[in-house]
Amino acid sequence: MKKIVTLGEIMLRLATPNFEKFNQATNYNAVFGGGEANVAVSLANYNNRVQHVTKLPDNELGQAAIDSLNKYRVHTNYIPRGGKRIGIYFLEQGYSYRPSKIIYDRESSSLATATIDDFDFYSIFDRAEWFHISGITPALSKSCEEITLKALQVAKEMGITVSMDVNFRASLWDIETARKVISNLMQYVDVCFDGDWPLGFRETTPDGTSLEDELKLYEKAFKNMSKVYGCKYYFSSLRKLISSSSNFYSACGYNGNEFYHTKVYDVDIIDRVGTGDSFVAGVINCLVKGKNFKEALDFGVAAAVLKHTIPGDVNLVKEEDVYNLLQGGNTRIQR
Amino acid sequence: MKKIVTLGEIMLRLATPNFEKFNQATNYNAVFGGGEANVAVSLANYNNRVQHVTKLPDNELGQAAIDSLNKYRVHTNYIPRGGKRIGIYFLEQGYSYRPSKIIYDRESSSLATATIDDFDFYSIFDRAEWFHISGITPALSKSCEEITLKALQVAKEMGITVSMDVNFRASLWDIETARKVISNLMQYVDVCFDGDWPLGFRETTPDGTSLEDELKLYEKAFKNMSKVYGCKYYFSSLRKLISSSSNFYSACGYNGNEFYHTKVYDVDIIDRVGTGDSFVAGVINCLVKGKNFKEALDFGVAAAVLKHTIPGDVNLVKEEDVYNLLQGGNTRIQR
Amino acid sequence: MKKIVTLGEIMLRLATPNFEKFNQATNYNAVFGGGEANVAVSLANYNNRVQHVTKLPDNELGQAAIDSLNKYRVHTNYIPRGGKRIGIYFLEQGYSYRPSKIIYDRESSSLATATIDDFDFYSIFDRAEWFHISGITPALSKSCEEITLKALQVAKEMGITVSMDVNFRASLWDIETARKVISNLMQYVDVCFDGDWPLGFRETTPDGTSLEDELKLYEKAFKNMSKVYGCKYYFSSLRKLISSSSNFYSACGYNGNEFYHTKVYDVDIIDRVGTGDSFVAGVINCLVKGKNFKEALDFGVAAAVLKHTIPGDVNLVKEEDVYNLLQGGNTRIQR
Amino acid sequence: MKKIVTLGEIMLRLATPNFEKFNQATNYNAVFGGGEANVAVSLANYNNRVQHVTKLPDNELGQAAIDSLNKYRVHTNYIPRGGKRIGIYFLEQGYSYRPSKIIYDRESSSLATATIDDFDFYSIFDRAEWFHISGITPALSKSCEEITLKALQVAKEMGITVSMDVNFRASLWDIETARKVISNLMQYVDVCFDGDWPLGFRETTPDGTSLEDELKLYEKAFKNMSKVYGCKYYFSSLRKLISSSSNFYSACGYNGNEFYHTKVYDVDIIDRVGTGDSFVAGVINCLVKGKNFKEALDFGVAAAVLKHTIPGDVNLVKEEDVYNLLQGGNTRIQR
Amino acid sequence: MKKIVTLGEIMLRLATPNFEKFNQATNYNAVFGGGEANVAVSLANYNNRVQHVTKLPDNELGQAAIDSLNKYRVHTNYIPRGGKRIGIYFLEQGYSYRPSKIIYDRESSSLATATIDDFDFYSIFDRAEWFHISGITPALSKSCEEITLKALQVAKEMGITVSMDVNFRASLWDIETARKVISNLMQYVDVCFDGDWPLGFRETTPDGTSLEDELKLYEKAFKNMSKVYGCKYYFSSLRKLISSSSNFYSACGYNGNEFYHTKVYDVDIIDRVGTGDSFVAGVINCLVKGKNFKEALDFGVAAAVLKHTIPGDVNLVKEEDVYNLLQGGNTRIQR
Amino acid sequence: MKKIVTLGEIMLRLATPNFEKFNQATNYNAVFGGGEANVAVSLANYNNRVQHVTKLPDNELGQAAIDSLNKYRVHTNYIPRGGKRIGIYFLEQGYSYRPSKIIYDRESSSLATATIDDFDFYSIFDRAEWFHISGITPALSKSCEEITLKALQVAKEMGITVSMDVNFRASLWDIETARKVISNLMQYVDVCFDGDWPLGFRETTPDGTSLEDELKLYEKAFKNMSKVYGCKYYFSSLRKLISSSSNFYSACGYNGNEFYHTKVYDVDIIDRVGTGDSFVAGVINCLVKGKNFKEALDFGVAAAVLKHTIPGDVNLVKEEDVYNLLQGGNTRIQR
Repeated sequence: MKKIVTLGEIMLRLATPNFEKFNQATNYNAVFGGGEANVAVSLANYNNRVQHVTKLPDNELGQAAIDSLNKYRVHTNYIPRGGKRIGIYFLEQGYSYRPSKIIYDRESSSLATATIDDFDFYSIFDRAEWFHISGITPALSKSCEEITLKALQVAKEMGITVSMDVNFRASLWDIETARKVISNLMQYVDVCFDGDWPLGFRETTPDGTSLEDELKLYEKAFKNMSKVYGCKYYFSSLRKLISSSSNFYSACGYNGNEFYHTKVYDVDIIDRVGTGDSFVAGVINCLVKGKNFKEALDFGVAAAVLKHTIPGDVNLVKEEDVYNLLQGGNTRIQR
Repeated sequence: MKKIVTLGEIMLRLATPNFEKFNQATNYNAVFGGGEANVAVSLANYNNRVQHVTKLPDNELGQAAIDSLNKYRVHTNYIPRGGKRIGIYFLEQGYSYRPSKIIYDRESSSLATATIDDFDFYSIFDRAEWFHISGITPALSKSCEEITLKALQVAKEMGITVSMDVNFRASLWDIETARKVISNLMQYVDVCFDGDWPLGFRETTPDGTSLEDELKLYEKAFKNMSKVYGCKYYFSSLRKLISSSSNFYSACGYNGNEFYHTKVYDVDIIDRVGTGDSFVAGVINCLVKGKNFKEALDFGVAAAVLKHTIPGDVNLVKEEDVYNLLQGGNTRIQR
Repeated sequence: MKKIVTLGEIMLRLATPNFEKFNQATNYNAVFGGGEANVAVSLANYNNRVQHVTKLPDNELGQAAIDSLNKYRVHTNYIPRGGKRIGIYFLEQGYSYRPSKIIYDRESSSLATATIDDFDFYSIFDRAEWFHISGITPALSKSCEEITLKALQVAKEMGITVSMDVNFRASLWDIETARKVISNLMQYVDVCFDGDWPLGFRETTPDGTSLEDELKLYEKAFKNMSKVYGCKYYFSSLRKLISSSSNFYSACGYNGNEFYHTKVYDVDIIDRVGTGDSFVAGVINCLVKGKNFKEALDFGVAAAVLKHTIPGDVNLVKEEDVYNLLQGGNTRIQR
Repeated sequence: MKKIVTLGEIMLRLATPNFEKFNQATNYNAVFGGGEANVAVSLANYNNRVQHVTKLPDNELGQAAIDSLNKYRVHTNYIPRGGKRIGIYFLEQGYSYRPSKIIYDRESSSLATATIDDFDFYSIFDRAEWFHISGITPALSKSCEEITLKALQVAKEMGITVSMDVNFRASLWDIETARKVISNLMQYVDVCFDGDWPLGFRETTPDGTSLEDELKLYEKAFKNMSKVYGCKYYFSSLRKLISSSSNFYSACGYNGNEFYHTKVYDVDIIDRVGTGDSFVAGVINCLVKGKNFKEALDFGVAAAVLKHTIPGDVNLVKEEDVYNLLQGGNTRIQR
Repeated sequence: MKKIVTLGEIMLRLATPNFEKFNQATNYNAVFGGGEANVAVSLANYNNRVQHVTKLPDNELGQAAIDSLNKYRVHTNYIPRGGKRIGIYFLEQGYSYRPSKIIYDRESSSLATATIDDFDFYSIFDRAEWFHISGITPALSKSCEEITLKALQVAKEMGITVSMDVNFRASLWDIETARKVISNLMQYVDVCFDGDWPLGFRETTPDGTSLEDELKLYEKAFKNMSKVYGCKYYFSSLRKLISSSSNFYSACGYNGNEFYHTKVYDVDIIDRVGTGDSFVAGVINCLVKGKNFKEALDFGVAAAVLKHTIPGDVNLVKEEDVYNLLQGGNTRIQR
Repeated sequence: MKKIVTLGEIMLRLATPNFEKFNQATNYNAVFGGGEANVAVSLANYNNRVQHVTKLPDNELGQAAIDSLNKYRVHTNYIPRGGKRIGIYFLEQGYSYRPSKIIYDRESSSLATATIDDFDFYSIFDRAEWFHISGITPALSKSCEEITLKALQVAKEMGITVSMDVNFRASLWDIETARKVISNLMQYVDVCFDGDWPLGFRETTPDGTSLEDELKLYEKAFKNMSKVYGCKYYFSSLRKLISSSSNFYSACGYNGNEFYHTKVYDVDIIDRVGTGDSFVAGVINCLVKGKNFKEALDFGVAAAVLKHTIPGDVNLVKEEDVYNLLQGGNTRIQR
């Protein structure tokens, strides 16, 4: 079996328990997570061979991050050790009208300060068929931008399919810089997730815009993107927020020919973080296994829907759990 | 006050906390529970004199199971000690679209390997007015089938009212065997719970069948059952699953003359396990106390509705809590 | 900045975790709270200068109660130490159809047994602009009634604005006594919360009464009250209980001229206790800062709505959190 | 089997976890305990028939206290319900040089305000062979003193053996009052625990007094007591405190003829509370079962030693655990 | 790097927290462990390539057991899935005079019911240099005895070094059977741990026997064993129990020529389970890396000493931690 | 009452619970602490007026750090908000032979990146009588070195007594740099803690050096220091490590005239962190209150001894607790 490679920062996530606010917390639940690492774990849970690449400090917290990947059968052989610290993010779970809050604390992290020499991409991509990256990594630092570019070039050179979750984060960089950097990277990308708005192809709409009207904008954006970039697929998830605890969730995609919108799920939320990564992992899983893009979208959405009910960053469902939901979602106790 | 006797396996229940999946759990919440034992505790909480019969290993876990019954004032004098192990079940609580999962681990348990000589039913039933059993016990082993039969024969001989919760479990036996064994036991049964489908009197219906149509099938099933078996009452609960966290719940019954369907409750769920047992206990409680079968059904359903909000296997509500719900269900804080 | 003074009992709150019933609890979550202290903390979180007055025993629990106020920047210089015990209340959180239960255990508490000599109100009110009290304190004991009266008299004498949350509690006294005592205190009150029903100006209505009809009764009550008492504002919150976990919440008010009713929120509940106090604190915060009574009501309701999602007695939101909700309530993760 | 009756207050014990100080605690571990109730549970764990008598409020906390006794097979049929509150005590566990702290909060408890009419001692003592009481109950209130006296008189009248743990508590009453009240009660006592110092027969000694010298004082005290009172046995435990976590523990006794001192154990402490009660229960267990007073003392001390290692108020060891220690105390893992 | 293979049952360990007794526990801490798996994890923590072989059920608990090994970088490719259940053991941690208790619940486990066809040892041992097994596996069932024998034969045939921890468990089989079975297996063993007493070469001694006298018996036993069996090394650990919380620990060994006894450590205990496995792993680690048998013994003992302070079954120390202790054991905070 | 000012970094401390190693932790206990802040809290617990100065980020974690000081009555008015992050340290508690481990994560913290303009020392020192600082702050960054120097100059100028805990940390800077920087600062210091070795006046000694010999070296060092620097007092604590859980602890001091060594305590350890700060706070407390330097040393050592038994960074004992230990240390339960 060929492998899937993911690259990105994995952080220590410290979340207040029981919906406590930061100022109430006397302890924090600790897991590890990060966009691309979350994709990696989910893909491993679908029985893919997956390898995650990042850089971590040479201390026990770095080792614990690695072992959190090992536990879920993600390969960790190409993770250089060094730098000053592991990135951290603090999470206060919201509820109902109260939004969740995240305090990022990834300043000077080992990956942000890594250099291009830390990674030998020819070895990393040996026997790989897919490479997944996000728009967060190039936003971390100038050297991370170079690393991303280099990774993409080598991947392309080695004939590996490339997917990118654009995932613009206003706290990391401004939209103009992001647009410039990501646009340049897009030449290496085969499968693009959530690129429409960040890359300037879709306007945000006022509250109350109908789903139909939204979808028209997505379709138009994808078609225009396809004139500019050479991707095989353009995908985006659609989330309508009812509250911190309840969302409507679906996704749409375009294969250069056909636009498709999935079923809309009304999801109740235990843990919102990492649901986008679950969508991405679900889509990649299907494409790798030869499903068509509609099947991939349906699967990705159902996988993300289930992730909303699982505490932590990573999606622990298996293919059979996703298919159970796709086939109607019997919620009788499984005995 | 005459006593109610229940017979069946009580297990150690180990549940992952905070909706964690099995592979995330670093600790398990531990309580004891089992269909008939749950009925016993609930009846004791309604101030009945109740005695539970089972077999448990002669170790600290067996003692803890007994003491969990003692705590709630269920008599435990007729529980032989011995055999190799206490049955266990592992529970992963579902949420929203994610179903709950139970891993049963009752192989070679003390009750499953008990023999007919472990129980002196004439002593057990001394001063009893009611005996409750389920279709799970005869499914555990051949000797458990014999024990069940013997218990029913002695109960009948001593003029004790017998109720049975048919409760078919596909993981324990196949439907053909179950049907044959249970059918034979039905000759001793006065009050039958959830026997319609397992005994072959009701077809399952496709999703989307209206409640009215469902109820017609239940009514027909009960009437046909009443031609075959000599029970005084036939009861069944109806559950429409919206999600793991939300169900519509009601029940219907037939007294050989009249068919009755209760109010339908839209319940939010903290703990789904043991709600059926709470329904049974609520019904028995009313029948023992001379209420009519409609009052019993109403009470049973309201009791079960409240159980959905209580963590653990057993229903801890008191009669006044159930009547509060029956009288409109004021949820203002009770100060 | 002038200060706001609050007076009332602060208790140790012991709540069963995870929706356990009292008989299941093997540990209790401990915080401190009490109507007026909750108002104080919330006001401090809006950057007001606040001072809470009460009496607490001279032991570590009394100190812990004080330090819980210090933590949130409420001044505690005028809390005499002595008496036998800190008041306690035990809380069992309800869910869905199951009501929450509170067992008050404030018998012989330090405040209930305090005397008028424990407090030097001229010093306490030095540099104060607002004094807030509730109808609970005079209900605690005869001496507490005297203390309340004295406090109000001195406040009035010193030209301080006085607000009172009438907050009738049937477990503390009967409605006739309450009405007599509170009516007498009303002469000192400028801003009256929830006085309509307890003071005999509004009838309770049957379930199913429409909101419109309810509001007419409130408007009438406020207008009649304004003929009897000389308050500047009359405010009341309106709560329609769907279940223990879900309420409709709004508020109305009258400024002697105009009647106003806020938006109605459909709130999901993590912790119902202290939400009324959050409403009061929100209103006071706005009035102190020169907002008009409609702005105050809108803010108070939004603040209370957010409090429903925060565990514990006190509201930890900041002004910006409330304004976020007032401006549409974006519940996207705040990164 | 005849029964043993115990009488005394059972309280809710709220202990800070993990050696936290009161001002750090955000939750409290909750169990129920009290001197005589602890004796009752320990005796039940040695397979005696035991009945505990107290008064508890008619609320869920009172019920939980009762059910904590039911769990351990102590009979609770003669516990009147009523009064205002359950007694509480707060515990901060000490360690090494830091002493444990207890804040008693038993003011106005249901037992302290009980009256003699709450108890029908003729029924209570039906089929009893032993009655155990402590010097704490008469210290709670005047009415409790009367209840104690009445109980002792009826016990004596019915020919029941009476034991008393004098257990003087300076926080409840002064030594002069205690001495007067207890001295009067001593006429009904057959087995006296720890009466030497409180009743004025033994001086306290300076630190550094040798064990030999201490024992001489105990022997002398017992012999003098035996001239005044008509007890069959006088017992006392000896505790030398090394630190909060480590004590030397032994006991001595006198049967009117012979003085005996047990082995001295060097105990490490997990929970110091209730160890004296474990000693008493161990001694009573042996005397009831016909062992001689030396065997009883040895057993009582070993039982108490084991209790030091068990969290909570009550001793959960069984006879075989105590005999294992008496026979050398193999601490190899029992598999 | 060549790999080390271990074979044996890995169980779910459920331990009561905070020194609670079984009858107090409302939750259990869950980890996975088992003699040979513990050896595997420890060896992986010393940066060896390690592969563990066992059989586990095809459910989430089986997967969680596997992932607990993956986490610590133990290879799990040769673990067949099937059978009825994962073995479980329940642990009650002792303290001071109170012994720890283990309730084994491994009846009908997947490994106990595995057959010889479940394992292809030629593939399993490919590129292996060492194979470790214990005397527990052949005790589990007749088929496990056959599996063990087959494994040893293939290992020998492939020139792999074989170590066995004899580890006699009286709860699994009687000493006569054990002796017969193990003696036969010894022909394949190169390194024998703790075989002296079980194989009949050393008498147990009375309490109070001096260490010198003990060591003479060990030396004699090893020399006699070396006349019977062809092992290269004989090792045994020596444990003198002061209490459940404190032991003296050392080890001795014989290389066919020289007898060696290590330093004796006075260890305080957080978790006693798995310390023997840590000793074994420490010794194997050194022998694999070419250290002499004295170095191996010193390292093994120091590793085991450190394991006594680590909660759970497995030893998480690294080589540098062990060498820190061997070089004097600086316990200053490592910053 | 004049105030005491402390200056230094306060960090979020994240400690693994239950002696877990970093790689086992699924949650972290969270408190706030830091050398000088710990001194501040302890002094506030002795009823001094104390003000802590630091810089913290303008987010909820910064606010929580401030409120942790407010809770214990430390004034926080002079804490500028800004910068990128709060410093963090991760703690793995050691036990017995296993050392504790700390991973510092204070890179780019708000204080480390603060500038001299963030602090108006003339306002800060208004009405102050004492200023305490440590050698950690100048080690954090060049600007922190400047801030320290400026603070000391202003303090001196305003006639405030200055104490410094030299507290050399090899992970922050090398000894040569430290020596140069600290030596320069010493001109402003009146009371010097633990300066002997870092400033080059005392050699470290081999293990096994007798306490007498050690003390001679301390005495010599202090006398030599007093020739170089103009301090009024030189103090040092002496710690002999038996294990991670047990230390011998004492202190010595010199007042320019007399050398004094306190009693040696054999301490068992729950939390080793912050014990040195407790010593410092104890000494300052006595000197501020006019005690002589021997009384101050005795008090400081006893205070530090008690801190070893308290979880978290800060010492929560009160003066009466320290005096109880100084007067013999009765560890009987305080009821």
